[in-house]
Amino acid sequence: MRTVFFISDRTGITAEALGNSLLTQFPQIDFKRVNLAFIDTQKKAQTAAQLIKEASETDGQAALIFSTQVSNEYRHLLENSGGIIFDFFETYISKMEKILETQSSHEMGLSHGVGNKNTYSGRIDSINFALNNDDGLTTKNYETADIILTGVSRSGKTPTCLFLALQYGIYAANYPLIDEDLDTSKLPNALKGFKNKLYGLSINPVRLQNIRDVRRSNSGYASIEQCRKEVRRAEDMFVQNDVPYIDTSHISIEEIAGRILQKSKLERRY
Amino acid sequence: MRTVFFISDRTGITAEALGNSLLTQFPQIDFKRVNLAFIDTQKKAQTAAQLIKEASETDGQAALIFSTQVSNEYRHLLENSGGIIFDFFETYISKMEKILETQSSHEMGLSHGVGNKNTYSGRIDSINFALNNDDGLTTKNYETADIILTGVSRSGKTPTCLFLALQYGIYAANYPLIDEDLDTSKLPNALKGFKNKLYGLSINPVRLQNIRDVRRSNSGYASIEQCRKEVRRAEDMFVQNDVPYIDTSHISIEEIAGRILQKSKLERRY
Repeated sequence: MRTVFFISDRTGITAEALGNSLLTQFPQIDFKRVNLAFIDTQKKAQTAAQLIKEASETDGQAALIFSTQVSNEYRHLLENSGGIIFDFFETYISKMEKILETQSSHEMGLSHGVGNKNTYSGRIDSINFALNNDDGLTTKNYETADIILTGVSRSGKTPTCLFLALQYGIYAANYPLIDEDLDTSKLPNALKGFKNKLYGLSINPVRLQNIRDVRRSNSGYASIEQCRKEVRRAEDMFVQNDVPYIDTSHISIEEIAGRILQKSKLERRY
Repeated sequence: MRTVFFISDRTGITAEALGNSLLTQFPQIDFKRVNLAFIDTQKKAQTAAQLIKEASETDGQAALIFSTQVSNEYRHLLENSGGIIFDFFETYISKMEKILETQSSHEMGLSHGVGNKNTYSGRIDSINFALNNDDGLTTKNYETADIILTGVSRSGKTPTCLFLALQYGIYAANYPLIDEDLDTSKLPNALKGFKNKLYGLSINPVRLQNIRDVRRSNSGYASIEQCRKEVRRAEDMFVQNDVPYIDTSHISIEEIAGRILQKSKLERRY
């Protein structure tokens, strides 16, 4: 067992994301992860250093520290804890200062928070858009949508729309393909005027069955025949109408959203 | 103008997050940001290198490249583009190999996607939980909730719940405090049995007025008197009942979620 600390003066999401990406390159090792967020006072930095020291002693080997710590002073405290530090700021800031021929501000907490009001309100607007235009609740705002996802029930439309809103500020609506839509391979009326905004989600029928079975066990809705039929007809509709689509069976929400963004050449709003 | 490229063999979210954090340390410089995601073939890497070359020529100075590129081969292509590369993988992987006394796998795409099925389904469950238990829609699942956010209308409950679900897999419900709840400083009946799961959101009344005014202009709901009254009474209720609360006026959704997580000592589910 080797303890890994993610330490940041803010949420620690960036330190965690990059740190975890690096750790996946060592699947043979069993890591214990500890996230210490908002380490923004000397006292908190001292406490963090103490925790690192104790973990290193317990493990019998130095803990790893992934940090995005802007303050030199607090970073030194972490460095002297007995752990091995990978500081994502320190590594790059001095190289960047040289290349950009200027000093960095060394201010904490700049990447989020105050001063971001437009981004913040904008993203709340995007989330509200996703919620108000989820699951075909209404189809009257498609003029305003950046993208309209469509696919059968449980193909991943809602979480993908919410992720597009939260991460990129995209206005994403979604429209579920139900039995009556799937009787023909023509686009449903509500979608006809918005062909250039459509993106299809498809899914492996067995995976779909598994997901639906959790919701409504042993129902017709969750039967493999129904799942196969719906997926086949939905894909026929996508192909027939030149709607691009993605198979969501084996990829994460982040990746579905990222690929859709890339393929449809959408820019983040915020 | 200086062009900055974020390049990854996956979504590029990590490269963007860390790269942007670093760029905020240089507020005096005007950066143009380009995100190139899913650079996972030699051809795509060559195209990326060409774009970097052209941007550097147009700007009259070398573009910056923030990259999380696992493949050495593709990284070399980027290095030879004339841009200056900050590769978050290369910098750390060899140091980690030495410390961990083992080889890294150097496989692309490990941080997301296939193999993460439990995490993926888990987070979808969390998102569904947030959606089904949003805005007091129902109060019957509070037994299952990890946390229940409460506050006046438009204090940020829904986006915070969704972010807790998406980022951390937390089961987060939310309950809106309406006029009749605020007639007294006692907890609403629906919340009484769950005091240890409650977290309050508060907000500056002027900011609340601005937000509400966009929704329902010049309404009683958006009047400053109404906003002041609701916020004051909600805070009284939090204090009276020892419910911890956070002012959401000037911080991002990530930070609200991060601070709540830290204060309530909740662990991520996925």
